[in-house]
Amino acid sequence: MQAAVVGAGQTAFGTSPRGLKAMFAEAARAAFASVDKGMQPQQVQEAWIGSISFGGAQLGNLAGLMGEHAGLQGVAARRVENACASGGYAFRDAVLAVQSGQVDIALAGGIERMNDWPEERQRYWLGVSGDTEWERTAGLTFSGVYALMAARHMRDFGTTREHLASVAVKNHANGALNPKAQFQKAVRLEDALKAPMVADPLGLYDCCGTTDGAACVLVVRGGLARQFTDTPVWVKASAAANDVLALHDRPSLTELRATQLAGKRAFAQAGVQPGDIDVAEVHDCFTIAELLAVEDLGFCAKGQGGPFTASGATQRTSGQVAVNTSGGLKAKGHPLGATGAGQVCELFLQLRGQAGPRQRTGAEVGLAHNVGGSGASCAVHVLGVGA
Amino acid sequence: MQAAVVGAGQTAFGTSPRGLKAMFAEAARAAFASVDKGMQPQQVQEAWIGSISFGGAQLGNLAGLMGEHAGLQGVAARRVENACASGGYAFRDAVLAVQSGQVDIALAGGIERMNDWPEERQRYWLGVSGDTEWERTAGLTFSGVYALMAARHMRDFGTTREHLASVAVKNHANGALNPKAQFQKAVRLEDALKAPMVADPLGLYDCCGTTDGAACVLVVRGGLARQFTDTPVWVKASAAANDVLALHDRPSLTELRATQLAGKRAFAQAGVQPGDIDVAEVHDCFTIAELLAVEDLGFCAKGQGGPFTASGATQRTSGQVAVNTSGGLKAKGHPLGATGAGQVCELFLQLRGQAGPRQRTGAEVGLAHNVGGSGASCAVHVLGVGA
Repeated sequence: MQAAVVGAGQTAFGTSPRGLKAMFAEAARAAFASVDKGMQPQQVQEAWIGSISFGGAQLGNLAGLMGEHAGLQGVAARRVENACASGGYAFRDAVLAVQSGQVDIALAGGIERMNDWPEERQRYWLGVSGDTEWERTAGLTFSGVYALMAARHMRDFGTTREHLASVAVKNHANGALNPKAQFQKAVRLEDALKAPMVADPLGLYDCCGTTDGAACVLVVRGGLARQFTDTPVWVKASAAANDVLALHDRPSLTELRATQLAGKRAFAQAGVQPGDIDVAEVHDCFTIAELLAVEDLGFCAKGQGGPFTASGATQRTSGQVAVNTSGGLKAKGHPLGATGAGQVCELFLQLRGQAGPRQRTGAEVGLAHNVGGSGASCAVHVLGVGA
Repeated sequence: MQAAVVGAGQTAFGTSPRGLKAMFAEAARAAFASVDKGMQPQQVQEAWIGSISFGGAQLGNLAGLMGEHAGLQGVAARRVENACASGGYAFRDAVLAVQSGQVDIALAGGIERMNDWPEERQRYWLGVSGDTEWERTAGLTFSGVYALMAARHMRDFGTTREHLASVAVKNHANGALNPKAQFQKAVRLEDALKAPMVADPLGLYDCCGTTDGAACVLVVRGGLARQFTDTPVWVKASAAANDVLALHDRPSLTELRATQLAGKRAFAQAGVQPGDIDVAEVHDCFTIAELLAVEDLGFCAKGQGGPFTASGATQRTSGQVAVNTSGGLKAKGHPLGATGAGQVCELFLQLRGQAGPRQRTGAEVGLAHNVGGSGASCAVHVLGVGA
């Protein structure tokens, strides 16, 4: 059975003075307001909400609590957690429910507040998103995990810090055009290269920020889509895969097998090739992560992500595929559990021609790529304007 | 599309010396071993795993990590959290995925270790399963939440402590016949009444224990079921509902609207009445919770749960419906996120006539009822031996 996205909305990503309930309600209101022919919260039959930290570990029953404050009283809701891929998996589970025929109208969302964590807790919440037994408790930070991948990528493929920085420059340029982005500021290559080192070889501009944010997406049974809008966005593929968690158990530090597997499944399901994708929101928690993503999804050959990106191939207006038109995790921000749903929000705008100054002209097929941990899990969705 | 359970297994519930990975692998192995015609872990396509505390908040990426150690490398897995209903929602999401046609073979499981939490953390993890803002941080314990409901039930309906204790006596008698139960010991009514008070009017025998445990269930597309067994257990209904979280926002302290709504949906979907249910595993985290459950599910009238239970109507051998043949949360144990999957394990045995000395003769239709928090969420499943 087909599933379609008929509404999507999010808070501004960044530092929010508001609590979780107010943030989630704002994202939900934005999603309902985006439904062209209108939808009421009580029309939603079931909800899947991604979050890692459930309010700094203080708000149990998070999914129900969020739904309660978004007008979804009585609507079955659960929290979906898969590290930083929580939002992508929440979206997948909502799609599966709609495809089952049991649920006509589903809400997939995500929420995280990170800026009110004490500094030690920030290391903790990011640390538990990687491996605990062999990495976190051995002192490896989450930036350090990706730094290991970057260093190995440099050694094996000749990737340079300029290659990495070209991701930041592109994504900041896109983010500067996104009023919902955390960092709406372009950055020059030389400034990115001069920034303080975080975890060698990753500097400040190689790392995403610490972000508060919420996002909601409304998924309906295909047959109902035109009751809500004349321009639904169709779910052409929903796929997911896992890999082992600890880096040392993987055969390679420069491939995310979960991305490769989920990507292959998604392309097969959608009946498209990487070359058919117009816009892609990929999981660039670090610049190296975007290079791995464009390689592992097949936009370019393994090892060529650096030159590919530096050549402008993923640039918004003229690249063969516009990668992270929203600014990506790097500039739009990365509120962990909300990121996956936020990616779908961007595709919803792009595929309906509503992305304003950052619109990729004529975008018809989009891809969302959401990674959990250092590649332990991945969800890939292909969306399109044709049914 | 139909879904069927072809395998189910669990660890013994109680105090385990083993870590999460070993416990989960044991439950998964038991589930695979229960598949009559065999199934290999790598045949599983996707997994949903319920857990609240993810290893005392120390093991991120829990779902993937559990899968990794149960032979499911590469299999997409996510954690489902809905307080104490996490396992029931994990099972529901696995069923929806199978019904979607995207997933042929799914694993639904759950795991919790509670006995290695420091005492303060025990109050915390149970506390966040209720409301935080108006209950936990005001000093109300989770036992206190249910004590308020019990006190009101006594006032409004004349329910007595003997009525409450009759739940404990019945469930301990059943647990005494279950080699997987935490408390395999019968208790006499007079001893239950003499036990120390925990939260007036709830004494020690009105409260479930602190339990380590894991459980796994294998759900397949109906058309595949007979490849795995000649006696599959069919999912006749999967339903869920939510209610507001804080007690003070509900119109009544003696009704769980989430149970009522999920129950109605489940009975309608299955095309059965409460009187058609032979065996029911209901969420008796406290004795009062079982009285509410039998009322809200429609096994008896509102307010009559006490006399109904004391009369033997829910007794294993001769009751109109055998409630908690496993011993229930009360005697079998309540490892939070594993409980919902554990309930399905019991129904799998009962409906296939494999429950040994605690078998309900001729059981053909079973119901599993899993509650999150103090009734904020509820999942109800109806299973049966006829397709």
